[in-house]
Amino acid sequence: MLPSLTGLSYIAGEWVKPTGQPTFNAYNPATNELLPTQYYEADQTLVDLAAEKAQSAFSEYRLLSAKQRSNFLSAMARQLQQLGPGIIEQAINETALPETRLTSELQRTINQLKLFADLLTQGLDLYPIIDQASPNRQPLPKPDIRQTQIPIGPVAVFGASNFPLAFSVAGGDTASALAAGCPVIVKGHPLHPGTSEFVTYAIDLAIKETAMPAGIFSLLQGQQHSLSELLVKQPAIKAVGFTGSLLAGRHLYNLACERPEPIPFFGELAASNPVFILPDALKQQHENIADNLCKSFTLNAGQFCTKPGLVVVMEDENLSTFIETLKKLCAQQPAQTMLSASIYQHYIQQCDKRQSIPGVITLASGRPSQGNNQAQVQLLSTSAKHFLKHPHLENELFGPTTLLIICTDEDELFAITDQLSGQLTASIFQQQNTPLVEQLMLRIQQRVGRIIFNAFPTGVEVNHAMHHGGPYPATTNSHFTSVGSQAIQRFLQPCCYQNTPDELLPPALQNANPLKLWRLVDGKLTQAGW
Amino acid sequence: MLPSLTGLSYIAGEWVKPTGQPTFNAYNPATNELLPTQYYEADQTLVDLAAEKAQSAFSEYRLLSAKQRSNFLSAMARQLQQLGPGIIEQAINETALPETRLTSELQRTINQLKLFADLLTQGLDLYPIIDQASPNRQPLPKPDIRQTQIPIGPVAVFGASNFPLAFSVAGGDTASALAAGCPVIVKGHPLHPGTSEFVTYAIDLAIKETAMPAGIFSLLQGQQHSLSELLVKQPAIKAVGFTGSLLAGRHLYNLACERPEPIPFFGELAASNPVFILPDALKQQHENIADNLCKSFTLNAGQFCTKPGLVVVMEDENLSTFIETLKKLCAQQPAQTMLSASIYQHYIQQCDKRQSIPGVITLASGRPSQGNNQAQVQLLSTSAKHFLKHPHLENELFGPTTLLIICTDEDELFAITDQLSGQLTASIFQQQNTPLVEQLMLRIQQRVGRIIFNAFPTGVEVNHAMHHGGPYPATTNSHFTSVGSQAIQRFLQPCCYQNTPDELLPPALQNANPLKLWRLVDGKLTQAGW
Repeated sequence: MLPSLTGLSYIAGEWVKPTGQPTFNAYNPATNELLPTQYYEADQTLVDLAAEKAQSAFSEYRLLSAKQRSNFLSAMARQLQQLGPGIIEQAINETALPETRLTSELQRTINQLKLFADLLTQGLDLYPIIDQASPNRQPLPKPDIRQTQIPIGPVAVFGASNFPLAFSVAGGDTASALAAGCPVIVKGHPLHPGTSEFVTYAIDLAIKETAMPAGIFSLLQGQQHSLSELLVKQPAIKAVGFTGSLLAGRHLYNLACERPEPIPFFGELAASNPVFILPDALKQQHENIADNLCKSFTLNAGQFCTKPGLVVVMEDENLSTFIETLKKLCAQQPAQTMLSASIYQHYIQQCDKRQSIPGVITLASGRPSQGNNQAQVQLLSTSAKHFLKHPHLENELFGPTTLLIICTDEDELFAITDQLSGQLTASIFQQQNTPLVEQLMLRIQQRVGRIIFNAFPTGVEVNHAMHHGGPYPATTNSHFTSVGSQAIQRFLQPCCYQNTPDELLPPALQNANPLKLWRLVDGKLTQAGW
Repeated sequence: MLPSLTGLSYIAGEWVKPTGQPTFNAYNPATNELLPTQYYEADQTLVDLAAEKAQSAFSEYRLLSAKQRSNFLSAMARQLQQLGPGIIEQAINETALPETRLTSELQRTINQLKLFADLLTQGLDLYPIIDQASPNRQPLPKPDIRQTQIPIGPVAVFGASNFPLAFSVAGGDTASALAAGCPVIVKGHPLHPGTSEFVTYAIDLAIKETAMPAGIFSLLQGQQHSLSELLVKQPAIKAVGFTGSLLAGRHLYNLACERPEPIPFFGELAASNPVFILPDALKQQHENIADNLCKSFTLNAGQFCTKPGLVVVMEDENLSTFIETLKKLCAQQPAQTMLSASIYQHYIQQCDKRQSIPGVITLASGRPSQGNNQAQVQLLSTSAKHFLKHPHLENELFGPTTLLIICTDEDELFAITDQLSGQLTASIFQQQNTPLVEQLMLRIQQRVGRIIFNAFPTGVEVNHAMHHGGPYPATTNSHFTSVGSQAIQRFLQPCCYQNTPDELLPPALQNANPLKLWRLVDGKLTQAGW
């Protein structure tokens, strides 16, 4: 069903070859062999063309009904389902991620599209508010004021290396922006350009099937940082969705803020996702916790933004048993191929660096590497005192390693909590709801997007209540999530209508309430119309 | 009831004098006479002290019930009401704004506090979302996920010169931040330091009356830019609310983005609030429109962020009558004292500059200045062609002047619409809902926060549906408003709880729904508990 790969960028329905630009190839990180297709580096001309097409499509796309956009997202989901096997095969070659993982990631990607399609049919994104007029109010008549959400404009999306489907070309950022009514220009991740091209092919079919304006989607292929910079600086771009490293993300965030017209940059950058295991939990279920911790931090070679990278425990009679169990489990873990040679090299270097710090002990190492770019599991530990003196130990270390931090008392535990910077998640393992648990939760909640009880953070539900965010550096904007239905809010902005004739109002605000939405009318939620 | 002015800053319940710093005086712009009190310029030590106290108060304040915070805001409103006459007298001396205006501004300030007090009792700020667990889901059990809003942390507020009460020490930014559960540090505007001190005195009484932690409020007095910079860079500050000029606002916005931990900067900067008067409206009600336009752009010497600074009309048989009427009205307008000598000088210079551009005609000038800092009304006009060639004519010109732009056809009108940068408002005067009106509204809505039919933008309702915002440069963050109850969202961020024991959850998320809130449970809005 899938055609041959072309290596081209896709601009508003056309596959386009830039003139006189360098090319690059993807490679299989399991073999270090180059894959055959040559990808052409997109240039300024293509960025501007994609932006112009997006701008022009926006004036049409934003006026489509929610139902029409919902149908389009459903068509995307169907096309991805249909082309799934070929897409997954390509993604395996480009990422070395296991087939089971990619199969479930594809399903998640499809479910995300369906979630937004469903959200649109229910109008849960519009938050209509109406304050009715009161012509006899003194000293001045009260006007009729109504508010709802409208799309912000063309959005640039940067795919992540570690989620070639769910956080890439048709991932959560793209799905939420398209759902909001915003055209999307994706800068594909250079580690999986073939996967990006195939997913774009599926999107192209969905655009044609539902007769959407072609300019609502473009894919730019490239591996040079300058391409990313051009895209963020393009004046037609009104918001950016980014998942990636702190270094690259902060750089692009800065560019977004420095534009003549600054734009919101929704970046998900770095997290170490602290896990607090309290003594009563350790006593009751140390084997279970050790087993699941080992599984969580080594899953897919620890290449998750939600990998638990810090494990805080208290000195206690059960601690040594827990550590012994954990060491045994970790020692048995096979090395796993990472996403790329450079990611693997970075892991090796950063592990070496951390292991050479006096006061950091290597408790266990997994089985040695047997092939290209295979990362060995490393279980490290240090004292709370030491951790508090070396705050950089908090930094995310991408790969199958975690750092056990041993506290001698609750004061140390709280000191760690208060020193942490922004995190996506924190986990608390406990049995009883003691004052310690409550105190810990109240302190940590200012520093994280999600608090998890008795479970590890890997595995992010895609639903209405999920918040995949948190204070910097977890994200660049703690008001918003990049996972779950609320992610659509990033690409919407309020528009307010005063004394506007009913027939000119968007349906969400019309007197009769034709969409049967819940609306805040004069301070009360109601589905009534009049 | 009010004590004598001290010239001191107020840090967490204490009036504090910085050591060895320069002082400044306010002056009465109507007389150019210095007012007697010397104000001490706050320094780094005071900024850090206020931040430390705010941080420490935050851990207590954020845990208070909504009812307690609501009571505090109500107490602030009562104290302001009680001390109102003295506050207004001081504000007249410092701003030369008329008593009637300041009386209604005080009432608005009080109403804002009451609006947030009321919002808190209803829990309309919390947006609770619950997706319940499904332990039998395949392939993995579905966890229980819940989300609500929590306060972001200490907030810096910058008062505006033109609203010494409603956008200053106890204005909308302060009210919404305190309502959200965030401590506030205000950098008082140096043009009305006595008003700031008196309002702080009222807040101090409210803090003591309701036994709030003292560190939730501080006022820093100062006139040097460096004080503003220190405050924005202070690490404990987690968000900024700012109303002021494009120049100062953009500078502080940049600093907020450049911090090691960037923070959201909610700045309301510049707008020219275009008014489109369509031929059918001109035909039916040209006298009424001319009268209200003249009143709107000259109100309080045109010193409003919502002053209509651009008036777009079509060449038409009724246009000359309209213009003649408007000219007569404008010529009768008295000169009015502006807020300060430098604001007045800026107005004079910018008017001169604009009037000297070939193609810009002065249609009418108001009565000449009779005293210090009195701005003469200036009614200017130009052709659409000329306006399109000189985009800087769009820039806000603070003061009693407006620019009439005459279009020869609809294409020119749309070209103007499409060239405009972000605006707080746009007004449309029409009689019939023609395709022209619809097209105009659909185009302009991407560039403004509020669309107004058949009325001028001055006079901003404070309610749930109001959106006082818009794309840059109207604001630095088009997702949020600085007026109305939704303003609280700027100082809240989501926190998500997974598999959390019911008794540890915030009340908004507990099974029983003790606050009787509307919650999105499994995708449906309900007030039910279980």
